[in-house]
Amino acid sequence: MYNDLPKSASVVQKYGGTSVGDPQRIRAVAARVARYKAAGWDRIAVVVSAMAGETNRLVGLMREVNPTGDHRTKAYDMAVSAGEQVSVGLMSEALEAHGVASEPLLAYQLQILTDEKHGQAKIHSIRTDFIENAWKNGRIPVVAGFQGITSAMEITTLGRGGSDTSAVALAAALKAGFCEINTDVDGVYTADPRYVRSAQLIEELDYETTLELAALGGKVLHSRCVELAAKHRVPLVVRNTFGPDEARRTRIMSFGEEKALEAPVVSGITLDEDVAKITVRQLPAGNAAIKSIFSEVAHKEINVDIIVHDHQDDGTVNRVGFTVQKHDLEPAVKAVESLRSQSQLEGLQVATQTNLAKVSAVGLGMRSHAGVALTIFDALAKNEVEILMISTSEIKVSCVVPLAQGKKAAQVLHGVFFESAK
Amino acid sequence: MYNDLPKSASVVQKYGGTSVGDPQRIRAVAARVARYKAAGWDRIAVVVSAMAGETNRLVGLMREVNPTGDHRTKAYDMAVSAGEQVSVGLMSEALEAHGVASEPLLAYQLQILTDEKHGQAKIHSIRTDFIENAWKNGRIPVVAGFQGITSAMEITTLGRGGSDTSAVALAAALKAGFCEINTDVDGVYTADPRYVRSAQLIEELDYETTLELAALGGKVLHSRCVELAAKHRVPLVVRNTFGPDEARRTRIMSFGEEKALEAPVVSGITLDEDVAKITVRQLPAGNAAIKSIFSEVAHKEINVDIIVHDHQDDGTVNRVGFTVQKHDLEPAVKAVESLRSQSQLEGLQVATQTNLAKVSAVGLGMRSHAGVALTIFDALAKNEVEILMISTSEIKVSCVVPLAQGKKAAQVLHGVFFESAK
Repeated sequence: MYNDLPKSASVVQKYGGTSVGDPQRIRAVAARVARYKAAGWDRIAVVVSAMAGETNRLVGLMREVNPTGDHRTKAYDMAVSAGEQVSVGLMSEALEAHGVASEPLLAYQLQILTDEKHGQAKIHSIRTDFIENAWKNGRIPVVAGFQGITSAMEITTLGRGGSDTSAVALAAALKAGFCEINTDVDGVYTADPRYVRSAQLIEELDYETTLELAALGGKVLHSRCVELAAKHRVPLVVRNTFGPDEARRTRIMSFGEEKALEAPVVSGITLDEDVAKITVRQLPAGNAAIKSIFSEVAHKEINVDIIVHDHQDDGTVNRVGFTVQKHDLEPAVKAVESLRSQSQLEGLQVATQTNLAKVSAVGLGMRSHAGVALTIFDALAKNEVEILMISTSEIKVSCVVPLAQGKKAAQVLHGVFFESAK
Repeated sequence: MYNDLPKSASVVQKYGGTSVGDPQRIRAVAARVARYKAAGWDRIAVVVSAMAGETNRLVGLMREVNPTGDHRTKAYDMAVSAGEQVSVGLMSEALEAHGVASEPLLAYQLQILTDEKHGQAKIHSIRTDFIENAWKNGRIPVVAGFQGITSAMEITTLGRGGSDTSAVALAAALKAGFCEINTDVDGVYTADPRYVRSAQLIEELDYETTLELAALGGKVLHSRCVELAAKHRVPLVVRNTFGPDEARRTRIMSFGEEKALEAPVVSGITLDEDVAKITVRQLPAGNAAIKSIFSEVAHKEINVDIIVHDHQDDGTVNRVGFTVQKHDLEPAVKAVESLRSQSQLEGLQVATQTNLAKVSAVGLGMRSHAGVALTIFDALAKNEVEILMISTSEIKVSCVVPLAQGKKAAQVLHGVFFESAK
């Protein structure tokens, strides 16, 4: 139960695809909502994803119908958004079955206005009067995640992590007490429990650290949703849908200066096993070539992660290395090679490497604790993990290592920061 | 190709669930639309059903989520209407794949306004400006069948035969040249070819005869869609989606007096094997009891078909027999038995019979040809078919017979009216 929350406050409860994966689970979620309403929290808004697997099924049908289409069209968004629509109808009906009056709502009703980028739209605004009216009439609003509409009333979808983003945007518009992300894990952990058995649930996190954890391969929350929550200062709660009401969970909020000072040096260790590296050699002197490379890659909408630039002392021969996700390797290489058509760059040499992983330590405390990077390099070296690239910021240290050593590297770092202290 | 139709005329093409049953079929339909557009008919509006089986799947999920719900709610309509939404997205994408620009449109966009009877809504009006705009921009509009919205913008569904009704209503609003119902049979036949092998395709039918054929068990068109077409004088064309362009089909229109005179005496034979009979005995004299029975049954929204009322000469004992669909038998019996609480009716006796079928001959020509009923009774008697009840009107004669003799009765009547003449 929400013991810290006044009953006058509003809450957004978001339920993901596995949480609404079959009729039985939908009924169990409805039972939970009914329990909270009966206890007096009646300003709850429910946001639902499509049933697990449904969006992929619809995307698959779309590809079969038009294998060569670009699939960022209004037709695509109309078909793909149907999964959330079904979940809304089912959840609303399940609430009725539990004696809770409800109001099923789609994007066109709430006026979840977005830009016109089909398949990856961004939310501009949400009207809250339908939600407030539902509450006034004693109803629980049930809202379709992942979808929006353009000003011309055409359906859009929000892309990856879309339903979480819908929930946070709605919570921001409602100035909700918090936005609860109900999922299939208990919260955010200090490392992935699948390969670090001693990983611990993190009870409190600040937005910044959460963002780095998400960006570095922590799969619980999508960066976009955390960014939006940070921007609007919406507290997030990540919990297991089918866990007990009082089970431990992760709360994500703004720490404030005082709390930030007390934050642990390192909050979590992440591992990203989807890393490929491109090394470009024989660059002419000066920064123009480097700029050409990254503007060409950015133009293809490829995200570059770590960049290592070894400037040679004599200034005549130059090289640059950078990492991308594996599926971006081929287009990135093509982008770089296309520069050879420029006479100055015709000598470019491009090499690639794919069996790589990136292990990172993230935490607000690094800002004030010197020597964290040294501890990391030292621990990895002692355990014979080969470090291929390094990237550091105020709150994270990332090392690219051979893929075969990735899990070991994560275990080593988790041991140093979370286990040796005990 | 539409050789009779000027290229300035508009056409509504409706494709049913089996016609859009998988991605390959959707592509084949899109290819047909593209062919007609290329030939110059560019004012085509496409209306689609949900993929075959999809609506049943969604209804099944709804029942699992709330087994005791009444399922005529906005939640139900939101979930169940998603099937057509997916078809619209897929068809629109398939048209693009065939190089045809398209405009996917849902009920809330076209403002297909209905009443608020969820699950069985009736259309009040449709805006046509989105369609006209699409044509103006060289696009083929693709419209979701089966769905509408209330004035409060809530999704409704139209109940059985809903997508056909959507198509006819749109054709009426557009004053279209005709409304094409693309389905999995070649058209309307003189009898069901599954048990009358010599059944023939009917090339031309008037609305009235079509209505009787539909109501009496012909499964190709739903009565509601034919009624709407008749009301707005929208010509219907029933054809096989995947038949050749020039294949024979059924055209349904207003005959006018002259053509009506030339209409065949009997246009078709139908068989309804879903017939149950209730006989009520020991009724007090006078019409009050009869009125009570049928008002009680109507109150339960049960459709009564044939009524046979044997008025006794002495006026003291009275009885009435009537037929209903089998699934309505139990509630109908309960409704009648509930009348026993009235002191005058406490002696009512109720008997039921279920193994029945109804064979009917339908045609405009009966109006002017005396003796058709006699021909029918004579033919059935000669072939030892037992006639249990009879009902006649200006354009049909129906006989209730034992279920085991139903198919034989249909074959006998088809023989008399369609085969002996040859």
